[in-house]
Amino acid sequence: MKYDAIIHNGWVITVNPAFEIIENGMVCVRNGEIAQVKKGGPDTNAYFADEWIDAAGGLVLPGLINTHVHLPMSIFRGLADDLPLAQWLNEHIFPAENHHMDAESVKAGARLSCLEMLLSGTTTCCDGYFLEDSVAEAVLEAGIRAVLAQGVIDFPAPGICEPARNLEVAAAYVSKWQNACDRIVPSIFCHSPYTCSSNTLVRAKEAAARAGVCFQIHVAETRGEADRIQNEHGISPVKYLDSLGILDERTLVSHAVWVDEGDIDILFSRGVGISHNPESNMKLASGVAPVPAFINAGIPVGLGTDGCASNNNLDLFTEMDTAAKLHKVVSQDPTVMDARRVLRMATIEGARAIGMERRIGSIEEGKSADLIIIDVRQPHLTPIYHPESHLVYAARGSDVRDVFVQGVPLVRDHEAAGLDAGAIMDAAAALGRKIWQTDRPESF
Amino acid sequence: MKYDAIIHNGWVITVNPAFEIIENGMVCVRNGEIAQVKKGGPDTNAYFADEWIDAAGGLVLPGLINTHVHLPMSIFRGLADDLPLAQWLNEHIFPAENHHMDAESVKAGARLSCLEMLLSGTTTCCDGYFLEDSVAEAVLEAGIRAVLAQGVIDFPAPGICEPARNLEVAAAYVSKWQNACDRIVPSIFCHSPYTCSSNTLVRAKEAAARAGVCFQIHVAETRGEADRIQNEHGISPVKYLDSLGILDERTLVSHAVWVDEGDIDILFSRGVGISHNPESNMKLASGVAPVPAFINAGIPVGLGTDGCASNNNLDLFTEMDTAAKLHKVVSQDPTVMDARRVLRMATIEGARAIGMERRIGSIEEGKSADLIIIDVRQPHLTPIYHPESHLVYAARGSDVRDVFVQGVPLVRDHEAAGLDAGAIMDAAAALGRKIWQTDRPESF
Repeated sequence: MKYDAIIHNGWVITVNPAFEIIENGMVCVRNGEIAQVKKGGPDTNAYFADEWIDAAGGLVLPGLINTHVHLPMSIFRGLADDLPLAQWLNEHIFPAENHHMDAESVKAGARLSCLEMLLSGTTTCCDGYFLEDSVAEAVLEAGIRAVLAQGVIDFPAPGICEPARNLEVAAAYVSKWQNACDRIVPSIFCHSPYTCSSNTLVRAKEAAARAGVCFQIHVAETRGEADRIQNEHGISPVKYLDSLGILDERTLVSHAVWVDEGDIDILFSRGVGISHNPESNMKLASGVAPVPAFINAGIPVGLGTDGCASNNNLDLFTEMDTAAKLHKVVSQDPTVMDARRVLRMATIEGARAIGMERRIGSIEEGKSADLIIIDVRQPHLTPIYHPESHLVYAARGSDVRDVFVQGVPLVRDHEAAGLDAGAIMDAAAALGRKIWQTDRPESF
Repeated sequence: MKYDAIIHNGWVITVNPAFEIIENGMVCVRNGEIAQVKKGGPDTNAYFADEWIDAAGGLVLPGLINTHVHLPMSIFRGLADDLPLAQWLNEHIFPAENHHMDAESVKAGARLSCLEMLLSGTTTCCDGYFLEDSVAEAVLEAGIRAVLAQGVIDFPAPGICEPARNLEVAAAYVSKWQNACDRIVPSIFCHSPYTCSSNTLVRAKEAAARAGVCFQIHVAETRGEADRIQNEHGISPVKYLDSLGILDERTLVSHAVWVDEGDIDILFSRGVGISHNPESNMKLASGVAPVPAFINAGIPVGLGTDGCASNNNLDLFTEMDTAAKLHKVVSQDPTVMDARRVLRMATIEGARAIGMERRIGSIEEGKSADLIIIDVRQPHLTPIYHPESHLVYAARGSDVRDVFVQGVPLVRDHEAAGLDAGAIMDAAAALGRKIWQTDRPESF
């Protein structure tokens, strides 16, 4: 048997339906796909490969999936913290976006985020922002896999001075990127039920449906939003969107914090996917989404970091750790969210939530070779009893040694393989200095 | 002016009372102490040093202080997760301790923990365990600073088959290590009000007071403990300890989750320090300590990771992040625990809680040169607006480049300077294999 590459001498955390963990396993890659997964060491008489990759006793797992992010916002990392969502958004983030976000800065921020994600083991992300064409160009060169949504909002936004053109811009973007690259899936992202009119919501969903792409939206993130929709429409945000016909199996809702049992029934029956963003919801004091109830209802729930302006990093390892611990303490039940459940959220359930579970999310034959290797030869990962426990409770993004997307090595030995990390950081730092000089509010 | 070393070209995060942050600052070290802190680059005509240490634009801050840990328990990292505290303790941790904890394994675990702490920027820890003599030997060779407490419990424990001897052993331990090394401060640690009789508690506190050392205890960690003390004594755990005369300014209580306003008044008026352990409390679903109320009351509150069996790492950067976010979401107030407040908890307030604020916890002239340097040349720390925001919300232990205790370099360029990291990990891994083979319960 001849392969392009064989990863061996690692614990293979398959995240397949049986959650098989193969100690001393091998993953054989051919034409960018996982061709074989088996137990055993390198049998060089029976297996031939252009490259044998020694995992050195580390953990081999499917690349992580970040189901909700705003890639360009990494240039606002730490600009404004410890504020209520409305003040943070209206007094800091929206003004900074209006002054500084253009095609160039959007691309610079997206490049920085792609670099950060790859170095910390994320191989697929689901983004929503403006000037998404520039995001797609950054993703194209980074080699990462992404669902990339052009944003729609009924206010002037980066690249769209005239809100009336928001749907036209979104449709043109989708049409340009459909079938342009098999790693990039275009999508449409309505900001929220309180920043888009019902007309905008319905027409954006129609445009997404016409193109056959995923429709994304922030829903029920804060109590303020839920109260406002209740006041204006007499129903919850989820029921409001359902009344507009927005919710179906091609819809991904982010946050879903302020939902009740009736909302959960609707989300399940419509086949909606949910992106859970615990760190962002905690940092903005938005609340705690009832994730155990979502999962028990059968709703696909992925993990998301949200943008760097509200988290402030894109590390899905610490996000897993937080997700596992937050729901334990909130429910006063330490069994409610175990390590396997959380690891599934960051991989196969995330893939389900964005409709890509046939292609990614687990190490199974026929899936894309989106793989990462964790270096466990470190004090904080010693000793090992249950490898999945370390992934959720002890590891961090910097433990990622190698990253492959479609079998292409993008990180080797903790270094980005194809990107100029120094130049990407320099460009982002220069933008940061510009933002700080021109935009430093009195309150800083 | 002649110094042993001068750290320059960094942001100096002093954590002094004014929380001064000096961009392009210098820290001059002489005889293990901070001799001068000033703004400006290297003036080699006016300043002479044996070594000029270039912080390369990074962050220079006081070494972090972990106010509650059980160092030897790192060898149980990830052995049993996702269980209620009582089951985790009684069915997994206590049996594993009984079978496997001897002087050798305690030392091996403590060595592993010291290595992990140093690499992630902790320069002082406050430990409580058994066979503490072996912990002290490991700390002595690691070069870290520590308050090390011999454990007292009314059950057979590692090194103490006969519980009646627990106080005798503790007193002998304290006497041996008092004045043995200026980095090691001995202490006595009663496990909890429900595992020590009132007689044991009182006599242990008397022994600590006689020796003039800190008395530590787990208090009000779980609702079960609070209910039990209420049933047995008719009062809360804090009031129970107060009724025994246990609480004073030489007492450090860990957890303090199940406390009411009356308890907070008592803790403040007695001058008690508190160790807040958010990740452990979340993972074991114990609850959320009312930390903003403690701080507002004027109680010194430090951060602790707790032992690796319940966290599962010793990274105070992710602990800071969790502390900041947890209290925001629980109180529904994003302003309640800002980055500076949290960074103070991990440094100067931790020092206050353990009675060492005159020696450590901030970068001020005359204090010990316990310093760390953060490497910010990384995507997830780019750009920089507010350095303290990055420390709490974006950084992780692996971002620590250099660590000094009393001016002695213990980590240089992310590598332990004086320890054989490979040998320490090998020994811990070998112990892990032994524990796994002989102790793997049916439920695994």
